[in-house]
Amino acid sequence: MKLDEKGLLVVISGPSGVGKGTVRNALFQREGHNLVYSISMTTRKPRPGEVNGREYYFVSQEEFENRIKNNQFLEYAQFVGNYYGTPLDMVEQKLNEGNEVVLEIEVQGAMQVRKKMDNAVFIFIAPPTMKDLLHRLQNRGSESNEVIQMRYEKACREIELAYMYDYIVVNDTVDNAADKIMAIIRAEHAKTIRTMSGYKKLLEEGKK
Amino acid sequence: MKLDEKGLLVVISGPSGVGKGTVRNALFQREGHNLVYSISMTTRKPRPGEVNGREYYFVSQEEFENRIKNNQFLEYAQFVGNYYGTPLDMVEQKLNEGNEVVLEIEVQGAMQVRKKMDNAVFIFIAPPTMKDLLHRLQNRGSESNEVIQMRYEKACREIELAYMYDYIVVNDTVDNAADKIMAIIRAEHAKTIRTMSGYKKLLEEGKK
Repeated sequence: MKLDEKGLLVVISGPSGVGKGTVRNALFQREGHNLVYSISMTTRKPRPGEVNGREYYFVSQEEFENRIKNNQFLEYAQFVGNYYGTPLDMVEQKLNEGNEVVLEIEVQGAMQVRKKMDNAVFIFIAPPTMKDLLHRLQNRGSESNEVIQMRYEKACREIELAYMYDYIVVNDTVDNAADKIMAIIRAEHAKTIRTMSGYKKLLEEGKK
Repeated sequence: MKLDEKGLLVVISGPSGVGKGTVRNALFQREGHNLVYSISMTTRKPRPGEVNGREYYFVSQEEFENRIKNNQFLEYAQFVGNYYGTPLDMVEQKLNEGNEVVLEIEVQGAMQVRKKMDNAVFIFIAPPTMKDLLHRLQNRGSESNEVIQMRYEKACREIELAYMYDYIVVNDTVDNAADKIMAIIRAEHAKTIRTMSGYKKLLEEGKK
Protein backbone atom coordinates (compact mmCIF):
# COMPACT_ATOMS: atom_id res chain seq x y z
CA MET A 1 0.00 0.00 0.00
CA LYS A 2 1.47 3.33 -1.03
CA LEU A 3 -0.17 6.52 0.14
CA ASP A 4 2.16 8.58 -2.01
CA GLU A 5 2.02 7.40 -5.61
CA LYS A 6 4.20 10.04 -7.20
CA GLY A 7 7.97 9.61 -7.30
CA LEU A 8 10.41 11.93 -5.56
CA LEU A 9 12.95 14.18 -7.16
CA VAL A 10 16.09 13.43 -5.17
CA VAL A 11 18.84 16.00 -5.62
CA ILE A 12 22.24 14.72 -4.55
CA SER A 13 24.87 17.39 -4.39
CA GLY A 14 28.02 18.37 -2.58
CA PRO A 15 31.49 19.74 -3.19
CA SER A 16 33.81 18.52 -5.89
CA GLY A 17 35.77 15.50 -4.65
CA VAL A 18 33.28 14.38 -2.02
CA GLY A 19 32.37 11.24 -3.96
CA LYS A 20 28.76 12.01 -4.87
CA GLY A 21 29.01 10.09 -8.15
CA THR A 22 30.23 7.00 -6.30
CA VAL A 23 27.41 7.28 -3.77
CA ARG A 24 24.86 7.63 -6.58
CA ASN A 25 26.23 4.54 -8.33
CA ALA A 26 26.01 2.57 -5.07
CA LEU A 27 22.35 3.63 -4.77
CA PHE A 28 21.50 2.28 -8.20
CA GLN A 29 23.13 -1.04 -7.40
CA ARG A 30 20.70 -1.64 -4.54
CA GLU A 31 17.81 -3.99 -5.05
CA GLY A 32 14.10 -3.26 -4.92
CA HIS A 33 14.19 0.43 -5.78
CA ASN A 34 12.54 2.40 -8.55
CA LEU A 35 15.29 4.97 -8.98
CA VAL A 36 15.94 6.38 -12.43
CA TYR A 37 18.60 8.72 -13.71
CA SER A 38 17.78 12.11 -15.05
CA ILE A 39 19.33 12.44 -18.50
CA SER A 40 20.85 15.83 -19.22
CA MET A 41 20.44 17.85 -22.40
CA THR A 42 23.48 19.34 -24.08
CA THR A 43 24.56 21.29 -27.14
CA ARG A 44 27.89 19.54 -27.37
CA LYS A 45 28.35 17.05 -30.22
CA PRO A 46 27.90 13.34 -29.44
CA ARG A 47 31.13 11.40 -29.06
CA PRO A 48 31.56 8.06 -30.83
CA GLY A 49 29.33 5.48 -29.18
CA GLU A 50 27.10 8.01 -27.42
CA VAL A 51 23.39 7.58 -28.10
CA ASN A 52 20.81 10.37 -28.07
CA GLY A 53 18.55 9.84 -25.02
CA ARG A 54 21.01 7.54 -23.27
CA GLU A 55 24.12 9.56 -22.33
CA TYR A 56 22.49 12.89 -23.19
CA TYR A 57 19.76 14.46 -25.22
CA PHE A 58 21.75 16.14 -27.96
CA VAL A 59 20.14 19.34 -29.25
CA SER A 60 21.12 22.44 -31.22
CA GLN A 61 22.08 25.68 -29.52
CA GLU A 62 18.90 27.26 -30.88
CA GLU A 63 16.68 24.58 -29.36
CA PHE A 64 18.50 24.82 -26.03
CA GLU A 65 18.14 28.59 -25.90
CA ASN A 66 14.46 28.33 -26.80
CA ARG A 67 13.98 25.97 -23.89
CA ILE A 68 15.76 28.41 -21.58
CA LYS A 69 13.40 31.18 -22.70
CA ASN A 70 10.38 28.94 -22.09
CA ASN A 71 11.56 28.02 -18.60
CA GLN A 72 11.93 24.37 -19.55
CA PHE A 73 15.02 23.57 -17.50
CA LEU A 74 15.25 22.64 -13.87
CA GLU A 75 18.81 23.96 -14.04
CA TYR A 76 21.38 24.64 -16.71
CA ALA A 77 24.93 25.90 -17.07
CA GLN A 78 27.52 26.66 -19.71
CA PHE A 79 30.79 24.76 -19.68
CA VAL A 80 33.63 25.20 -22.23
CA GLY A 81 31.29 26.82 -24.71
CA ASN A 82 28.48 24.24 -24.45
CA TYR A 83 25.21 24.22 -22.59
CA TYR A 84 24.23 21.44 -20.19
CA GLY A 85 20.84 21.28 -18.50
CA THR A 86 18.14 19.13 -16.88
CA PRO A 87 14.93 19.15 -18.94
CA LEU A 88 11.93 19.82 -16.72
CA ASP A 89 9.28 17.97 -18.79
CA MET A 90 11.24 14.71 -18.86
CA VAL A 91 11.82 14.79 -15.12
CA GLU A 92 8.12 15.43 -14.47
CA GLN A 93 7.06 12.60 -16.76
CA LYS A 94 9.26 10.14 -14.86
CA LEU A 95 7.97 11.40 -11.50
CA ASN A 96 4.36 10.99 -12.62
CA GLU A 97 5.13 7.40 -13.59
CA GLY A 98 6.09 6.79 -9.94
CA ASN A 99 9.86 6.76 -10.35
CA GLU A 100 12.28 8.42 -7.99
CA VAL A 101 14.39 10.66 -10.21
CA VAL A 102 17.94 11.07 -8.97
CA LEU A 103 19.76 14.22 -9.95
CA GLU A 104 23.45 14.29 -9.09
CA ILE A 105 24.56 17.86 -9.67
CA GLU A 106 26.86 20.65 -8.56
CA VAL A 107 25.91 22.94 -5.71
CA GLN A 108 25.13 25.86 -8.02
CA GLY A 109 22.72 23.74 -10.07
CA ALA A 110 21.03 22.41 -6.95
CA MET A 111 20.28 25.96 -5.83
CA GLN A 112 18.56 26.57 -9.19
CA VAL A 113 16.45 23.42 -8.77
CA ARG A 114 15.42 24.51 -5.27
CA LYS A 115 13.74 27.56 -6.76
CA LYS A 116 11.70 25.50 -9.23
CA MET A 117 10.86 22.31 -7.34
CA ASP A 118 10.22 23.08 -3.74
CA ASN A 119 8.95 19.57 -2.97
CA ALA A 120 12.15 17.91 -4.16
CA VAL A 121 14.45 16.37 -1.54
CA PHE A 122 17.84 18.05 -1.27
CA ILE A 123 20.69 15.97 0.10
CA PHE A 124 24.13 17.41 0.70
CA ILE A 125 26.96 14.88 0.68
CA ALA A 126 29.61 16.04 3.15
CA PRO A 127 33.16 14.77 3.70
CA PRO A 128 33.98 13.33 7.13
CA THR A 129 36.50 16.19 7.53
CA MET A 130 37.95 18.92 5.30
CA LYS A 131 41.33 17.18 5.55
CA ASP A 132 39.74 14.07 4.12
CA LEU A 133 38.33 16.07 1.20
CA LEU A 134 41.75 17.59 0.48
CA HIS A 135 43.28 14.10 0.44
CA ARG A 136 40.63 12.89 -1.98
CA LEU A 137 41.31 15.81 -4.32
CA GLN A 138 45.08 15.14 -4.10
CA ASN A 139 44.68 11.42 -4.71
CA ARG A 140 43.03 11.92 -8.06
CA GLY A 141 46.66 12.23 -9.12
CA SER A 142 46.21 13.79 -12.51
CA GLU A 143 45.99 17.44 -11.52
CA SER A 144 48.56 20.11 -10.71
CA ASN A 145 48.85 21.50 -7.19
CA GLU A 146 47.40 24.77 -8.41
CA VAL A 147 44.25 23.09 -9.77
CA ILE A 148 43.88 21.04 -6.58
CA GLN A 149 44.17 24.20 -4.48
CA MET A 150 41.53 25.96 -6.62
CA ARG A 151 39.14 23.01 -6.33
CA TYR A 152 39.69 22.86 -2.59
CA GLU A 153 38.91 26.54 -2.14
CA LYS A 154 35.75 26.14 -4.22
CA ALA A 155 34.77 23.13 -2.07
CA CYS A 156 35.24 25.23 1.10
CA ARG A 157 32.80 27.81 -0.24
CA GLU A 158 30.31 25.14 -1.32
CA ILE A 159 30.41 23.44 2.05
CA GLU A 160 29.15 26.61 3.68
CA LEU A 161 25.93 26.18 1.64
CA ALA A 162 24.98 22.88 3.27
CA TYR A 163 22.41 24.66 5.44
CA MET A 164 20.31 25.24 2.29
CA TYR A 165 19.68 21.49 1.97
CA ASP A 166 17.11 19.28 3.69
CA TYR A 167 19.60 16.61 4.75
CA ILE A 168 23.33 16.31 5.31
CA VAL A 169 24.78 12.85 4.71
CA VAL A 170 28.41 12.28 5.65
CA ASN A 171 30.24 10.11 3.12
CA ASP A 172 32.26 8.21 5.73
CA THR A 173 31.71 4.99 3.79
CA VAL A 174 29.84 4.73 0.49
CA ASP A 175 27.57 2.01 1.90
CA ASN A 176 26.62 4.09 4.93
CA ALA A 177 25.85 7.09 2.78
CA ALA A 178 23.74 5.01 0.37
CA ASP A 179 21.86 3.40 3.30
CA LYS A 180 21.02 6.81 4.67
CA ILE A 181 19.76 8.08 1.33
CA MET A 182 17.51 5.03 0.93
CA ALA A 183 16.13 5.70 4.43
CA ILE A 184 15.55 9.35 3.53
CA ILE A 185 13.60 8.39 0.39
CA ARG A 186 11.49 5.94 2.37
CA ALA A 187 10.81 8.42 5.16
CA GLU A 188 9.96 11.24 2.75
CA HIS A 189 7.22 9.12 1.19
CA ALA A 190 5.64 8.69 4.64
CA LYS A 191 5.63 12.45 5.34
CA THR A 192 2.13 13.64 6.14
CA ILE A 193 2.41 16.46 3.65
CA ARG A 194 2.97 13.94 0.84
CA THR A 195 0.46 11.32 2.02
CA MET A 196 -2.59 13.42 2.86
CA SER A 197 -4.40 13.09 -0.47
CA GLY A 198 -3.77 9.33 -0.66
CA TYR A 199 -4.78 9.01 2.99
CA LYS A 200 -8.12 10.71 2.42
CA LYS A 201 -8.90 8.48 -0.54
CA LEU A 202 -8.04 5.41 1.53
CA LEU A 203 -10.38 6.38 4.33
CA GLU A 204 -13.22 7.24 1.97
CA GLU A 205 -12.88 3.82 0.37
CA GLY A 206 -12.89 2.19 3.79
CA LYS A 207 -16.09 3.94 4.80
CA LYS A 208 -18.06 2.60 1.84
CA MET B 1 30.25 9.28 12.41
CA LYS B 2 27.15 10.88 13.86
CA LEU B 3 26.47 14.56 13.25
CA ASP B 4 23.48 14.43 15.57
CA GLU B 5 24.49 13.07 18.97
CA LYS B 6 21.24 13.57 20.80
CA GLY B 7 18.51 10.95 20.65
CA LEU B 8 15.10 11.53 19.16
CA LEU B 9 11.79 11.51 20.93
CA VAL B 10 9.66 9.29 18.71
CA VAL B 11 5.94 9.57 19.39
CA ILE B 12 3.96 6.65 17.99
CA SER B 13 0.25 7.16 18.09
CA GLY B 14 -2.94 6.30 16.28
CA PRO B 15 -6.49 5.17 16.92
CA SER B 16 -7.45 2.41 19.30
CA GLY B 17 -7.21 -0.98 17.55
CA VAL B 18 -4.69 0.05 14.89
CA GLY B 19 -1.97 -2.12 16.42
CA LYS B 20 0.46 0.55 17.60
CA GLY B 21 1.59 -1.58 20.55
CA THR B 22 2.41 -4.47 18.22
CA VAL B 23 4.35 -2.17 15.91
CA ARG B 24 6.29 -0.76 18.86
CA ASN B 25 7.16 -4.26 20.08
CA ALA B 26 8.38 -5.19 16.59
CA LEU B 27 10.62 -2.10 16.60
CA PHE B 28 12.29 -3.13 19.85
CA GLN B 29 12.96 -6.60 18.49
CA ARG B 30 15.11 -5.17 15.68
CA GLU B 31 18.87 -5.34 15.99
CA GLY B 32 21.32 -2.48 16.14
CA HIS B 33 19.06 0.19 17.54
CA ASN B 34 19.31 2.35 20.63
CA LEU B 35 15.61 2.63 21.30
CA VAL B 36 14.41 2.86 24.87
CA TYR B 37 10.95 2.87 26.38
CA SER B 38 9.63 5.83 28.23
CA ILE B 39 8.38 4.68 31.62
CA SER B 40 5.14 6.31 32.76
CA MET B 41 4.44 7.70 36.19
CA THR B 42 1.20 6.78 37.97
CA THR B 43 -0.68 7.24 41.21
CA ARG B 44 -2.22 3.80 41.07
CA LYS B 45 -0.91 1.21 43.52
CA PRO B 46 1.65 -1.32 42.22
CA ARG B 47 0.22 -4.75 41.46
CA PRO B 48 1.99 -7.86 42.74
CA GLY B 49 5.24 -8.31 40.81
CA GLU B 50 5.39 -4.72 39.51
CA VAL B 51 8.62 -2.89 40.28
CA ASN B 52 8.97 0.86 40.75
CA GLY B 53 10.94 2.22 37.75
CA ARG B 54 10.26 -0.84 35.58
CA GLU B 55 6.51 -1.01 34.83
CA TYR B 56 5.84 2.47 36.20
CA TYR B 57 7.17 5.08 38.55
CA PHE B 58 4.72 4.80 41.41
CA VAL B 59 4.14 8.10 43.22
CA SER B 60 1.58 9.66 45.56
CA GLN B 61 -1.23 11.84 44.31
CA GLU B 62 0.42 14.83 46.02
CA GLU B 63 3.72 14.28 44.23
CA PHE B 64 1.94 13.83 40.90
CA GLU B 65 -0.05 17.03 41.30
CA ASN B 66 3.07 18.93 42.32
CA ARG B 67 4.71 17.75 39.12
CA ILE B 68 1.69 18.90 37.11
CA LYS B 69 1.95 22.38 38.71
CA ASN B 70 5.67 22.52 37.92
CA ASN B 71 5.10 21.57 34.29
CA GLN B 72 7.07 18.36 34.69
CA PHE B 73 4.99 16.15 32.41
CA LEU B 74 5.16 15.78 28.67
CA GLU B 75 1.57 14.64 28.86
CA TYR B 76 -0.74 13.23 31.50
CA ALA B 77 -4.31 12.03 31.90
CA GLN B 78 -6.67 10.66 34.50
CA PHE B 79 -8.13 7.20 34.08
CA VAL B 80 -10.48 5.46 36.53
CA GLY B 81 -9.48 7.81 39.32
CA ASN B 82 -5.71 7.53 38.82
CA TYR B 83 -3.19 9.75 37.12
CA TYR B 84 -0.88 8.49 34.38
CA GLY B 85 1.82 10.68 32.82
CA THR B 86 5.16 10.86 31.02
CA PRO B 87 7.81 12.53 33.21
CA LEU B 88 9.68 15.19 31.23
CA ASP B 89 12.99 15.04 33.13
CA MET B 90 13.44 11.30 32.65
CA VAL B 91 12.73 11.54 28.94
CA GLU B 92 15.24 14.37 28.56
CA GLN B 93 17.92 12.48 30.46
CA LYS B 94 17.58 9.49 28.13
CA LEU B 95 17.65 11.72 25.04
CA ASN B 96 20.83 13.44 26.25
CA GLU B 97 22.44 10.04 26.67
CA GLY B 98 21.86 9.49 22.92
CA ASN B 99 18.90 7.12 23.15
CA GLU B 100 15.85 7.29 20.95
CA VAL B 101 12.95 7.45 23.37
CA VAL B 102 9.82 5.78 22.03
CA LEU B 103 6.50 7.00 23.36
CA GLU B 104 3.48 4.93 22.36
CA ILE B 105 0.46 6.98 23.39
CA GLU B 106 -3.10 7.92 22.59
CA VAL B 107 -3.87 10.69 20.14
CA GLN B 108 -4.91 13.13 22.89
CA GLY B 109 -1.61 12.62 24.72
CA ALA B 110 0.37 13.06 21.52
CA MET B 111 -1.24 16.46 20.97
CA GLN B 112 -0.06 17.49 24.47
CA VAL B 113 3.50 16.37 23.68
CA ARG B 114 3.47 18.34 20.44
CA LYS B 115 3.03 21.56 22.43
CA LYS B 116 6.03 20.83 24.67
CA MET B 117 8.53 19.10 22.38
CA ASP B 118 8.40 20.60 18.97
CA ASN B 119 11.49 18.73 17.78
CA ALA B 120 10.01 15.32 18.55
CA VAL B 121 8.99 13.10 15.63
CA PHE B 122 5.27 12.41 15.44
CA ILE B 123 4.21 9.25 13.65
CA PHE B 124 0.58 8.37 13.08
CA ILE B 125 -0.15 4.67 12.61
CA ALA B 126 -3.06 4.32 10.20
CA PRO B 127 -5.13 1.25 9.30
CA PRO B 128 -5.09 0.12 5.66
CA THR B 129 -8.84 0.87 5.57
CA MET B 130 -11.52 1.81 8.07
CA LYS B 131 -13.15 -1.56 7.43
CA ASP B 132 -9.93 -3.23 8.48
CA LEU B 133 -9.90 -1.22 11.71
CA LEU B 134 -13.48 -2.22 12.49
CA HIS B 135 -12.59 -5.88 11.95
CA ARG B 136 -9.63 -5.57 14.30
CA LEU B 137 -11.82 -4.04 17.01
CA GLN B 138 -14.41 -6.81 16.51
CA ASN B 139 -11.82 -9.57 16.60
CA ARG B 140 -10.64 -8.65 20.08
CA GLY B 141 -13.67 -10.74 20.99
CA SER B 142 -14.07 -9.72 24.59
CA GLU B 143 -16.15 -6.60 24.16
CA SER B 144 -19.83 -5.94 23.61
CA ASN B 145 -21.10 -4.55 20.31
CA GLU B 146 -21.85 -1.28 22.04
CA VAL B 147 -18.28 -0.86 23.29
CA ILE B 148 -16.92 -1.80 19.85
CA GLN B 149 -19.16 0.79 18.22
CA MET B 150 -18.02 3.46 20.71
CA ARG B 151 -14.37 2.63 20.10
CA TYR B 152 -14.90 2.71 16.36
CA GLU B 153 -16.53 6.13 16.48
CA LYS B 154 -13.67 7.44 18.63
CA ALA B 155 -11.20 6.00 16.12
CA CYS B 156 -12.99 7.79 13.28
CA ARG B 157 -12.55 11.11 15.07
CA GLU B 158 -8.91 10.37 15.89
CA ILE B 159 -8.14 9.45 12.32
CA GLU B 160 -9.13 12.95 11.22
CA LEU B 161 -6.22 14.28 13.33
CA ALA B 162 -3.54 12.51 11.29
CA TYR B 163 -2.68 15.77 9.53
CA MET B 164 -1.22 17.06 12.82
CA TYR B 165 1.55 14.44 12.63
CA ASP B 166 4.85 14.52 10.73
CA TYR B 167 4.44 11.08 9.20
CA ILE B 168 1.64 8.65 8.41
CA VAL B 169 2.62 4.99 8.43
CA VAL B 170 0.05 2.47 7.25
CA ASN B 171 0.04 -0.68 9.35
CA ASP B 172 -0.53 -3.03 6.40
CA THR B 173 1.96 -5.48 7.88
CA VAL B 174 3.75 -5.02 11.19
CA ASP B 175 7.13 -5.57 9.51
CA ASN B 176 6.48 -2.94 6.87
CA ALA B 177 5.37 -0.43 9.46
CA ALA B 178 8.43 -1.11 11.65
CA ASP B 179 10.74 -0.82 8.61
CA LYS B 180 9.29 2.55 7.78
CA ILE B 181 9.65 3.82 11.32
CA MET B 182 13.32 2.74 11.40
CA ALA B 183 13.84 4.62 8.10
CA ILE B 184 12.12 7.69 9.54
CA ILE B 185 14.40 7.68 12.60
CA ARG B 186 17.46 7.33 10.41
CA ALA B 187 16.36 10.09 8.04
CA GLU B 188 15.44 12.46 10.87
CA HIS B 189 18.98 12.23 12.24
CA ALA B 190 20.32 13.36 8.85
CA LYS B 191 18.03 16.40 8.70
CA THR B 192 20.01 19.58 8.25
CA ILE B 193 18.20 21.25 11.11
CA ARG B 194 19.44 18.54 13.48
CA THR B 195 22.96 18.20 12.06
CA MET B 196 24.07 21.82 11.70
CA SER B 197 25.87 22.19 15.02
CA GLY B 198 27.65 18.85 14.65
CA TYR B 199 28.48 19.73 11.06
CA LYS B 200 30.12 23.02 12.02
CA LYS B 201 32.22 21.30 14.67
CA LEU B 202 33.30 18.68 12.15
CA LEU B 203 34.43 21.26 9.63
CA GLU B 204 36.28 23.32 12.22
CA GLU B 205 38.16 20.21 13.32
CA GLY B 206 39.04 19.42 9.72
CA LYS B 207 40.45 22.87 9.10
CA LYS B 208 42.98 22.62 11.97
